[in-house]
Amino acid sequence: MSRLRGRFKKAADDLVNDYTVSIGFDGRLYRHDIQGSIAHAKMLALQGIISQEDSDLIVKGLTSIQKEIEKGKLEFKTELEDIHMHIESRLFELIGDTAGKLHTARSRNDQVALDLRLYARETILLTLWKLRTLQKAIVDQAEEYKEVIMPAYTHLQRAQPVLLAHHLLAYFEMFNRDAERFYDCVRRVDVLPLGSGAVTGAPYPLDRGFVARELGFSRVSENSLDAVSDRDFVIEFQAAASITMMHLSRLAEEMVLWSSTEFGFLELDDAYTTGSSLMPQKKNPDVAELARGKTGRVYGNLVGILTVMKGLPLAYNRDMQEDKESFFDTSDTLLNTLNVFVGMVQTMRFNVECLQRGGHEGHMLATDIADYLVSKGLPFREAHEIVGGLVCHVVGQGKNLQELSLEEYHSFSPVFDDDVYSITADSAVAARNAIGGTSPDQVEVQLARARAIVENES
Amino acid sequence: MSRLRGRFKKAADDLVNDYTVSIGFDGRLYRHDIQGSIAHAKMLALQGIISQEDSDLIVKGLTSIQKEIEKGKLEFKTELEDIHMHIESRLFELIGDTAGKLHTARSRNDQVALDLRLYARETILLTLWKLRTLQKAIVDQAEEYKEVIMPAYTHLQRAQPVLLAHHLLAYFEMFNRDAERFYDCVRRVDVLPLGSGAVTGAPYPLDRGFVARELGFSRVSENSLDAVSDRDFVIEFQAAASITMMHLSRLAEEMVLWSSTEFGFLELDDAYTTGSSLMPQKKNPDVAELARGKTGRVYGNLVGILTVMKGLPLAYNRDMQEDKESFFDTSDTLLNTLNVFVGMVQTMRFNVECLQRGGHEGHMLATDIADYLVSKGLPFREAHEIVGGLVCHVVGQGKNLQELSLEEYHSFSPVFDDDVYSITADSAVAARNAIGGTSPDQVEVQLARARAIVENES
Amino acid sequence: MSRLRGRFKKAADDLVNDYTVSIGFDGRLYRHDIQGSIAHAKMLALQGIISQEDSDLIVKGLTSIQKEIEKGKLEFKTELEDIHMHIESRLFELIGDTAGKLHTARSRNDQVALDLRLYARETILLTLWKLRTLQKAIVDQAEEYKEVIMPAYTHLQRAQPVLLAHHLLAYFEMFNRDAERFYDCVRRVDVLPLGSGAVTGAPYPLDRGFVARELGFSRVSENSLDAVSDRDFVIEFQAAASITMMHLSRLAEEMVLWSSTEFGFLELDDAYTTGSSLMPQKKNPDVAELARGKTGRVYGNLVGILTVMKGLPLAYNRDMQEDKESFFDTSDTLLNTLNVFVGMVQTMRFNVECLQRGGHEGHMLATDIADYLVSKGLPFREAHEIVGGLVCHVVGQGKNLQELSLEEYHSFSPVFDDDVYSITADSAVAARNAIGGTSPDQVEVQLARARAIVENES
Amino acid sequence: MSRLRGRFKKAADDLVNDYTVSIGFDGRLYRHDIQGSIAHAKMLALQGIISQEDSDLIVKGLTSIQKEIEKGKLEFKTELEDIHMHIESRLFELIGDTAGKLHTARSRNDQVALDLRLYARETILLTLWKLRTLQKAIVDQAEEYKEVIMPAYTHLQRAQPVLLAHHLLAYFEMFNRDAERFYDCVRRVDVLPLGSGAVTGAPYPLDRGFVARELGFSRVSENSLDAVSDRDFVIEFQAAASITMMHLSRLAEEMVLWSSTEFGFLELDDAYTTGSSLMPQKKNPDVAELARGKTGRVYGNLVGILTVMKGLPLAYNRDMQEDKESFFDTSDTLLNTLNVFVGMVQTMRFNVECLQRGGHEGHMLATDIADYLVSKGLPFREAHEIVGGLVCHVVGQGKNLQELSLEEYHSFSPVFDDDVYSITADSAVAARNAIGGTSPDQVEVQLARARAIVENES
Repeated sequence: MSRLRGRFKKAADDLVNDYTVSIGFDGRLYRHDIQGSIAHAKMLALQGIISQEDSDLIVKGLTSIQKEIEKGKLEFKTELEDIHMHIESRLFELIGDTAGKLHTARSRNDQVALDLRLYARETILLTLWKLRTLQKAIVDQAEEYKEVIMPAYTHLQRAQPVLLAHHLLAYFEMFNRDAERFYDCVRRVDVLPLGSGAVTGAPYPLDRGFVARELGFSRVSENSLDAVSDRDFVIEFQAAASITMMHLSRLAEEMVLWSSTEFGFLELDDAYTTGSSLMPQKKNPDVAELARGKTGRVYGNLVGILTVMKGLPLAYNRDMQEDKESFFDTSDTLLNTLNVFVGMVQTMRFNVECLQRGGHEGHMLATDIADYLVSKGLPFREAHEIVGGLVCHVVGQGKNLQELSLEEYHSFSPVFDDDVYSITADSAVAARNAIGGTSPDQVEVQLARARAIVENES
Repeated sequence: MSRLRGRFKKAADDLVNDYTVSIGFDGRLYRHDIQGSIAHAKMLALQGIISQEDSDLIVKGLTSIQKEIEKGKLEFKTELEDIHMHIESRLFELIGDTAGKLHTARSRNDQVALDLRLYARETILLTLWKLRTLQKAIVDQAEEYKEVIMPAYTHLQRAQPVLLAHHLLAYFEMFNRDAERFYDCVRRVDVLPLGSGAVTGAPYPLDRGFVARELGFSRVSENSLDAVSDRDFVIEFQAAASITMMHLSRLAEEMVLWSSTEFGFLELDDAYTTGSSLMPQKKNPDVAELARGKTGRVYGNLVGILTVMKGLPLAYNRDMQEDKESFFDTSDTLLNTLNVFVGMVQTMRFNVECLQRGGHEGHMLATDIADYLVSKGLPFREAHEIVGGLVCHVVGQGKNLQELSLEEYHSFSPVFDDDVYSITADSAVAARNAIGGTSPDQVEVQLARARAIVENES
Repeated sequence: MSRLRGRFKKAADDLVNDYTVSIGFDGRLYRHDIQGSIAHAKMLALQGIISQEDSDLIVKGLTSIQKEIEKGKLEFKTELEDIHMHIESRLFELIGDTAGKLHTARSRNDQVALDLRLYARETILLTLWKLRTLQKAIVDQAEEYKEVIMPAYTHLQRAQPVLLAHHLLAYFEMFNRDAERFYDCVRRVDVLPLGSGAVTGAPYPLDRGFVARELGFSRVSENSLDAVSDRDFVIEFQAAASITMMHLSRLAEEMVLWSSTEFGFLELDDAYTTGSSLMPQKKNPDVAELARGKTGRVYGNLVGILTVMKGLPLAYNRDMQEDKESFFDTSDTLLNTLNVFVGMVQTMRFNVECLQRGGHEGHMLATDIADYLVSKGLPFREAHEIVGGLVCHVVGQGKNLQELSLEEYHSFSPVFDDDVYSITADSAVAARNAIGGTSPDQVEVQLARARAIVENES
Repeated sequence: MSRLRGRFKKAADDLVNDYTVSIGFDGRLYRHDIQGSIAHAKMLALQGIISQEDSDLIVKGLTSIQKEIEKGKLEFKTELEDIHMHIESRLFELIGDTAGKLHTARSRNDQVALDLRLYARETILLTLWKLRTLQKAIVDQAEEYKEVIMPAYTHLQRAQPVLLAHHLLAYFEMFNRDAERFYDCVRRVDVLPLGSGAVTGAPYPLDRGFVARELGFSRVSENSLDAVSDRDFVIEFQAAASITMMHLSRLAEEMVLWSSTEFGFLELDDAYTTGSSLMPQKKNPDVAELARGKTGRVYGNLVGILTVMKGLPLAYNRDMQEDKESFFDTSDTLLNTLNVFVGMVQTMRFNVECLQRGGHEGHMLATDIADYLVSKGLPFREAHEIVGGLVCHVVGQGKNLQELSLEEYHSFSPVFDDDVYSITADSAVAARNAIGGTSPDQVEVQLARARAIVENES
């Protein structure tokens, strides 16, 4: 809150001002603050709380201030603590004492809550748009490499052949849930707190519905104490952002792994890698690594705001000023990370030969051979043990399962027949044809649905 | 995953078994595991993958095992690692090799994901029911003390008079948003993962829709890699629980504060306080304190699962076994805390005299006096400064604002008139009559809406 | 790492540059970077790796650059990514191609590690100095109010009479342990990483001991992979800072509580409180609240760096760039918070009357009465129960224990005698005369020891 | 605190008892509780506070109870809340009312603080021993594979040739710092809190130094309020454990990577891997994955206790009961993880051929060629650019740097000469011969120092 002359004899010293000042980070709320003030001023006039002339003068003044700020003509000074004081103080300069009427029926507490909600709504909509763009880039890549078979991993061990498109679309699903969470979050952001006063409401005949409509809110808060002290929407945003960053960190991890010499699956575009100051041959996936690292920052911001709110009595406490800087940091980090991922995903190129070699190699058909035995009437657990023995045998001999003779097969079970050789990576992929499986048909279904989602919205 | 004989020559030593074993905490999933297995077995028969006889035998066996567990007749042993192996192994004992057929077209990965989703759904529904019960207790108390005026606080300083009911209903709002978040979360839990196999789907003609209907899921997962490696719903639950615990910690903090000698607002029922081993006179609000402390545990569980999932490549990795213990810990903590709060809120008694004295004392009418000056035509900021001077004056004299003479008032501003004495705590409360304000009328509206919510659902 | 021309055909686009750029926060390392480079250049010449003339030229150039930066003459540009590139690039401008020789036997990886260690050492020493200053302020206040008896609390319930000085000195102890932790941390910071190259060391006959001595390090790192990838010291600093912030949050909490109307124990200086934009009578303990809130930020920074480092393979990964911004944020927050607390503690004034009234009131002598019964031969548990009954009785009657007649005492136990009336707050305080107790004698001992600690060092 | 009869008319209901009960986890403190009580009882007699006979009786009783517990003869019941009440109540059964005298001059608050410190000291010493054992296993493996050259990685890209022993010893260094941190922590654990009473000390002529000596503490606490409310040592332990788990997660990550088909560097012993329920060919590094995952749990425990302590007023609050369960969870997790890592490291076998092939392949000599040019007089930055061009050329041609003809070399710079062919992986490794470099000589020095450390202590 501002340091006001009336009550205090002693000027707060500079150290304290530096400690409590927020203009260094809340300046970005200038648009939201002005937008909210304009709606408030209009309503005050409509309700006869101030005159129409005063209201018009205030609105005109605020509009000018917005232009000044956007042209870089309003200097931010730490003496004026926060963006609200800057705008208020400039309004006094521009229109004189009428400026003081803007603060009728309003407190810093409900004003700040409003600004942050306006900002949050905007940020979440941007996030949704970026998520869709990233999802579209994933769909495009999945489409492009639709035929390619690669190894699916569990425990980072090669498990079964899978379509690369299917693997990529797993990320589509993750980002789809992320989008859902942001949609849910924005519903709870979409509540007008203005009109709650400092804590108990304002002793004026406000038309809060009017203000809500002006600002595009679909609801007004129903309890003033709650309205000025609720920061759930900040935490919920931080949590949704944390989950999205977690997903991005998994994709980043795979980009790093797949770009290694050892995997050799992926070539990131030069624009998304960097060289080394010492080792001229290096092509480092720095952007992916940095994104993975920035997950920590976002998790930390979530922990920060959870800690701030723990055990605070009602209603507003100054601790809550700590809601904003980490909110901005997370929203910047998230949007920027989504941004670079869009380009990185769009431009990445797969080493098809390497993937295919991986997809057809090894012992990844073991499950299918076990299922083959099941189809011949063996219980699954018994089939599993027989194939376990087979694998042990071929590993010892340095062979692939497909290189065994039928005789060798028979030494493990008499039910093996010639048709065991028809089990291939392609047949294994095609066989997984229930919903959500990796068969080409199912992947087409997924692609069509994914395409519909990204095209409807972005 | 289980340690199987086929592939391994060497028995895993005890240390490792102790390290990887999960029966110590996943035993509570027995019902969900059996329920899922029964649905799977039925579907296998319907689709002709196993015979109807085998299916019936399996279902019968599983049903017996459930009864055995519920009667405490199935001993849990660490050699059998997890609940799934216990049930499987017992099924072999009961029905012989047919038991092996249950695992056709299924993997531990999709089975575990299913069990946890069934459990999560159940837990969230319980949480919702408990939240409603707590909201109802709050509404009842608000109704009971509807007339009482107390001080509203900001910065823990007395700010303005407020109805106790209004203060209590702020918590109603918080828990209402918490309930919304759990409803949103359960929609994302409500997805059947079974049929995803270990990672790429299962090479069988599954009817996943049938299984979903049997188990009451409204959707089936659409990508097998995602389905076995998605733990978003766990994180989202942990985040929703963290926010709820944060709210409970705020209520707990106020209970502790208000029970202190200094505040003296609240008397907790003896059942929710404890004595001291050393100080016979103490009546400590231990339950509220412990609830406040348990917030840390739930925050920690959220951080834990976020950390686990950070940077994991697709698809299933054993790290994910760490999803469960902290999930159970959070769900137990949350449900138990809600449970004790229901009773604590129902039985708490307010010290009305103390609250009323606080609500009418002090300088809490300063804002209203400023608004009074505004109503006489002064701009708000000027009015604010005048009242600031007044407060400074009365503090110096050890008086209340209402004790000043009109002359004294005049020395601060000529616009003061006799009607300044009509500003009282009651008039201040009544004046806050816009939506969400603390006026008796608005509080009635809130109460009616709150009552409707808790009565519709609980 | 910098984006170098040799390997890359395509310029990284702006988005990526914005994403990876660090000059926005690492500019503050300019002194440490130059200091490290000068020591390196000197050593290169000493070892004959570059000529003395080249070394002198480099040192001169770097010295000029430092002056330019300090005079604000070196503009920071995002194209030049980080502080290291800014200095390198400016050195090329100033001294031409000889600048290139500075990077002999050095990599960005060991350079960055060095700079951060130099910065960390400086920050920790500043922190220690501030901690001592705060401890001194506490000692001064304890000395000032040495005679005042107040209530000691457990569970925020009044428990036993205690000297205010004893209460204040509890914080002295906390900050003393905090200082110990920072001393321990600085020992692990005090290791020279330079000379580790990018990852495996440098193929030059380095004299790392010389560089260490030049820079005031007492040890050199013993494994190059570890040296470039170790960020333990950052985590350890974040953890030590988190514990210190936790202690500050406890002190802040008490300042907030004690400044409330209800407690009325403490008057913070106006410089450390603020008024309200709406409520002219308010005097809010904003600085204390904000400090309590900033605990969240520091905890979050700790979680951030722990998350970054989790599961990273050796050696340097770009994720680690995320070590710095949160380090700076924590060190700024901690130093600024200590700074404002020093002033706030120095200027706070206690309401002695209020404290004394609290210290002598209530049932806080119950423990001493139980101990009195023990001194008459009753086992402690029995004495405890008798006094429990007594308290119940006086609470029912609205009396104090000291107001009971001897007859009433006798109705609870025949062993009570006239001397029960000699139990007073003063006698209770004086009786706690073992080490660490609140008796005036023990508090004198504490004060003397505390005084010695703060005077030896600050 | 225990629920005592004197003050309370109403029995606490079961729900509350279940909520506040701690016997489920604090039972493991029985030894420490008894040990502390024995020391206390002896001191009480020595100081004449109780009689020697009573003291002897109490000690005898406690000794019997310890034996009963160790033989499993003392049943834990939730009615008796915590381990302290169990022991107290059994003592009453065994020796009658004299048992009540044990609690003279002691409170639950200082008793609990003592027990946790005794436990913490024991746990830390065990941790140190396990860390040394793990370090020894690392040294043994480094010794075993001393000659093997492998690729060193930065950004998971192959960077330069390195000795496997050097890579392994990087972990030795990490665990060495971890050990240092635990040593530092134990110094702050090593303080006797007993004698602080509930909050202000005890009104008895205690000999705290005697109790400290009996229990092996080197210091006694100096402020009673601090002593009962200090949980720094818990947080510090949690932080030290988090850093150790972070290091283990890095080693685990490399074990997982190196065990993959793609890397093929490492074969974990069968005992530390598991098979798949569905895929018979899998050999999954479950133990390493689970350890990596358990990092989350330990981080979470750290966040939990930091959250608990944030903003708590002095002195003891019931929130602090939450210090123990997460402490035990972390200490169990850490010790068990160290335990399995000892075996896993001891038994792991490297695929030398694979490592060597990696160590000699690729473009990893680029830095050395740049340094070669520097040795011929070029500034490093220029040399770096030339080699960048070379790498670009050979990548285009699918060659290795060593396969270029001298002519080709000359087309990039005239200073290349025949001796460029003497640059090999072996020469590159040997050249890094400053302290901490990967040359065989330096690695011998490291090994000798490491051996000395582990042999001195374990």
